[in-house]
Amino acid sequence: MKEIKEKCNSGKESKKIYVKGNLYDIEVGMREVELTDTIVEGKRESNGSLRLYDTSGAFGDENIKTDIKNGLPRIREKYLSERKDIEKLKEFSSDYSKQRLNDKNLDEIRFSKTHLPYKAKPNCRITQMALAKRGIITPEMEYVAIRENMGMGKELNTYITPEFVRQQVAEGRAVIPANVNHPEAEPMIIGSKFLVKINTNIGNSALSSDIEQEVDKAIYSSLWGGDTLMDLSTGKHIHETREWIIRNCPVPMGTVPLYQALEKVEGKVENLNWEIYKDTLIEQCEQGVDYFTIHAGLLQRYLEFIPKRLTGIVSRGGSIMAKWMSIHGKENFLYEHFEEICQILAQYDVAVSIGDGLRPGSIADANDEAQFGELETMGELTKVAWKYDVQVLIEGPGHVPMHKIKENMDKQKQLCHNAPFYTLGPLTTDIAPGYDHITSAIGAAMIGWFGTAMLCYVTPKEHLGLPNREDVRNGIMAYKIASHAADIAKGHPAAMLRDNAISKARFEFRWKDQFNLSLDSERAMEYYGAEKLKGTPYCTMCGPNFCAMRISKEVTQK
Amino acid sequence: MKEIKEKCNSGKESKKIYVKGNLYDIEVGMREVELTDTIVEGKRESNGSLRLYDTSGAFGDENIKTDIKNGLPRIREKYLSERKDIEKLKEFSSDYSKQRLNDKNLDEIRFSKTHLPYKAKPNCRITQMALAKRGIITPEMEYVAIRENMGMGKELNTYITPEFVRQQVAEGRAVIPANVNHPEAEPMIIGSKFLVKINTNIGNSALSSDIEQEVDKAIYSSLWGGDTLMDLSTGKHIHETREWIIRNCPVPMGTVPLYQALEKVEGKVENLNWEIYKDTLIEQCEQGVDYFTIHAGLLQRYLEFIPKRLTGIVSRGGSIMAKWMSIHGKENFLYEHFEEICQILAQYDVAVSIGDGLRPGSIADANDEAQFGELETMGELTKVAWKYDVQVLIEGPGHVPMHKIKENMDKQKQLCHNAPFYTLGPLTTDIAPGYDHITSAIGAAMIGWFGTAMLCYVTPKEHLGLPNREDVRNGIMAYKIASHAADIAKGHPAAMLRDNAISKARFEFRWKDQFNLSLDSERAMEYYGAEKLKGTPYCTMCGPNFCAMRISKEVTQK
Repeated sequence: MKEIKEKCNSGKESKKIYVKGNLYDIEVGMREVELTDTIVEGKRESNGSLRLYDTSGAFGDENIKTDIKNGLPRIREKYLSERKDIEKLKEFSSDYSKQRLNDKNLDEIRFSKTHLPYKAKPNCRITQMALAKRGIITPEMEYVAIRENMGMGKELNTYITPEFVRQQVAEGRAVIPANVNHPEAEPMIIGSKFLVKINTNIGNSALSSDIEQEVDKAIYSSLWGGDTLMDLSTGKHIHETREWIIRNCPVPMGTVPLYQALEKVEGKVENLNWEIYKDTLIEQCEQGVDYFTIHAGLLQRYLEFIPKRLTGIVSRGGSIMAKWMSIHGKENFLYEHFEEICQILAQYDVAVSIGDGLRPGSIADANDEAQFGELETMGELTKVAWKYDVQVLIEGPGHVPMHKIKENMDKQKQLCHNAPFYTLGPLTTDIAPGYDHITSAIGAAMIGWFGTAMLCYVTPKEHLGLPNREDVRNGIMAYKIASHAADIAKGHPAAMLRDNAISKARFEFRWKDQFNLSLDSERAMEYYGAEKLKGTPYCTMCGPNFCAMRISKEVTQK
Repeated sequence: MKEIKEKCNSGKESKKIYVKGNLYDIEVGMREVELTDTIVEGKRESNGSLRLYDTSGAFGDENIKTDIKNGLPRIREKYLSERKDIEKLKEFSSDYSKQRLNDKNLDEIRFSKTHLPYKAKPNCRITQMALAKRGIITPEMEYVAIRENMGMGKELNTYITPEFVRQQVAEGRAVIPANVNHPEAEPMIIGSKFLVKINTNIGNSALSSDIEQEVDKAIYSSLWGGDTLMDLSTGKHIHETREWIIRNCPVPMGTVPLYQALEKVEGKVENLNWEIYKDTLIEQCEQGVDYFTIHAGLLQRYLEFIPKRLTGIVSRGGSIMAKWMSIHGKENFLYEHFEEICQILAQYDVAVSIGDGLRPGSIADANDEAQFGELETMGELTKVAWKYDVQVLIEGPGHVPMHKIKENMDKQKQLCHNAPFYTLGPLTTDIAPGYDHITSAIGAAMIGWFGTAMLCYVTPKEHLGLPNREDVRNGIMAYKIASHAADIAKGHPAAMLRDNAISKARFEFRWKDQFNLSLDSERAMEYYGAEKLKGTPYCTMCGPNFCAMRISKEVTQK
């Protein structure tokens, strides 16, 4: 952990600060960068400071001692424990959870503390959406309002109001993923009217990785700027790995419960059934997963389109459900049981991220009848979830050439009633394995501009292997760029403050400020070679005689 | 050189092939990738082979022995030597060239061979544009027609005809940079109706790099796919470094002659004058530079807009000319002497790339009156150059947010009479130093789709330092992605052949084909860990039970 602290703060003349709420006793974490003065003709002009949106939680606060064995401070617990509509259970509800808890062989790898779960009291509608519909502004809503406003500047306190957040959540246009069993997470909001967010995926497969590595990737993901995190583990000890991650995760976490359900039947798709899946949902709801990807929109009637495709089905969940339907000759059980699913999720305020099992896996398959057929069903399911006040995200492609991206956004808005869109990329060409963080950042920036609320990152290892920590870093940076470029193009009033601050610093050779304001300060300093050239008014790129900015200043200061 | 050969061919079951011309005795180099068979129910189905556009020249041909001390084969010399409109001079025309040649101190670092220059005979109009206007299809035109057609597939022989190339060049809509003194270069074409091209920049500064490193970067640039190369050296021995690069450069090479002119007056902008600049032009024309960036559009009247900017002038050439005008209180001498410049360039068929000295250096300055004012003058100069049959490129920004990119393309087309646009990025945000290959690949892909003919790459070191070889690689790959994504979006009929081939290979677990068809085979193999998992029908990303493609195949093959 010591190393992590150092990484986070190295080179940043910045500190984690907390802004208090007006309605609730909350403290909204953000990062404040102190800027150095501009010196004009010997006189100093202050550049003040800039506040940056920060996802690092306690890991980014040098004043908080963290220990992954204890987990993060449970910052939401104080207001969760005061809620009248939820209760703390005496034991876990899932059979599988109980079985794992009682298995002595797992003691060694188990997270040391056990937190009994919260759940809605009978007949209570507890989700952020339910409360929003009733006109209630929750602490989470005030938190995200402050966070969105202040995340990128000082003087924008009134752009996003708590009441505006409430309206957006009530209408299903925005989602605050906030399972009552994940009180370690700092609330955040996903919606097209807010800053574009990014999701990172981690997780081991049967072939690789272990718990420590996954926790490490999760922590770095939040330090580097991941807004949410999906644990896509498919190997052994999924339950225990997830517990470690959630207890140390300052951002909302998602999963694909089908993966674990399949592990429980030893990878035999034919043995999957609703009972096993249902118990898995409850298990994960009580651990604190904030949103589930559920491939309920892939229906039997869409399978006939698959043989026409160049690359068939490329969604893992989609392929599993297609195989299940094909073996049993029955409709997708996730579709058939979708109302029950929503009833379960509603009791913990877990959001549903309706998975696009038929997302295209190649440029050739983009925007085909399989993809758009499923999207229509996803729209139908959105209304079902909202009936139970379950918050909804809609997952999107995948692989789409630039000229077909806009159509995806337009159709999603229309068919899915303005529920937030959450896309993977899209990749704009298939020819660059090893660089798919770039092929997809292009598509991600564009679809973010068009209205996508959250971008699921892609790492350089996509199509080739599991990402390591450095791959996670490169994927996150590509997506922070895409989401920020989208915020600028969308005209978010705060988005350009950081660009303007860094550009001014660049023009004035305030290198330290430039590094502190950079997305990845460490890398920028490493490339600049900070040790060699401290304080010189030029860089090795152009050398002293050819520095345009220096010459430009000479001209205008004459 | 041995190492370079190995790099180029490693892991590629591909070979350099040559397609003969119908009109001329030419051999157009390209790369052919043999694909393995698809096996369906025990039966083999051939996937044939795919031809890829290739920029590597002799360096990519294992049958040609190359030695940088001798330079590349002078492939165009046979038809240049037969031309009646050019003659070989008895000595160099530039005073500076003669002086350097006679300086014994330079013998040690000088390229060993001396090639006397070709030049137009008196009153002969020799440029590709002049010939095109007279209805002549040149060998270069047939070469690029074959190259464009066959570059991305086998059955597209008739998409681009030599006559179509001639028309595009005659109208100024496309440029074939082909100095008669650079016969080592394989002809290529830059225009919105053709494949989008990428330019790479190399060059040392006073602080860094040496000749060997620069030649090495130039060779790797062409091996990795750079379509043209600019030598932006500003340090010592510019003349000699350039000679080494040109003699070993299989792609057209550009420079900014102003940089060398400034070195000749020891960095004192006030001492720059037309005579020194003119001699520099002649010096470089006779060495074989194929296009010059000339900042002739930056006029005195635009300087008043600069103080309104956040980041002033960020073009090196632009800042130098602004300072010169400011010191002397005179109009830009490049503008004043533009007709003479064109007369010189026309004698060697050097293209002019009209530099945008006022390109924005930050998101805040995009699309301002300084930038668009200069663009108007660049349009005026385009007509002047065409009067002398000098081929014209128009340089563009820079730093532009996504929502302002289209306006750049539209205004350029309108103001510059459809001359090809050649843009640097644009970068879509300023906050990611260390990752500006990505911030700019986003803008580059979009502006390429909108009609930009050539994209000037940006490396991860932009704003921080000079790129090394690995930075060049990363910059090139980001821009090959951007240009290819643009080709697909523009609907180039051949562009999707490679995507479809690699996607089919991916779906069929033909890993070897997937690597061979990748932009960067080596990196893809490195990430996959080819040694570990040869021939397995899944990768470490998902493991055996969760491979969507494998499951998808099982479903559809049932």
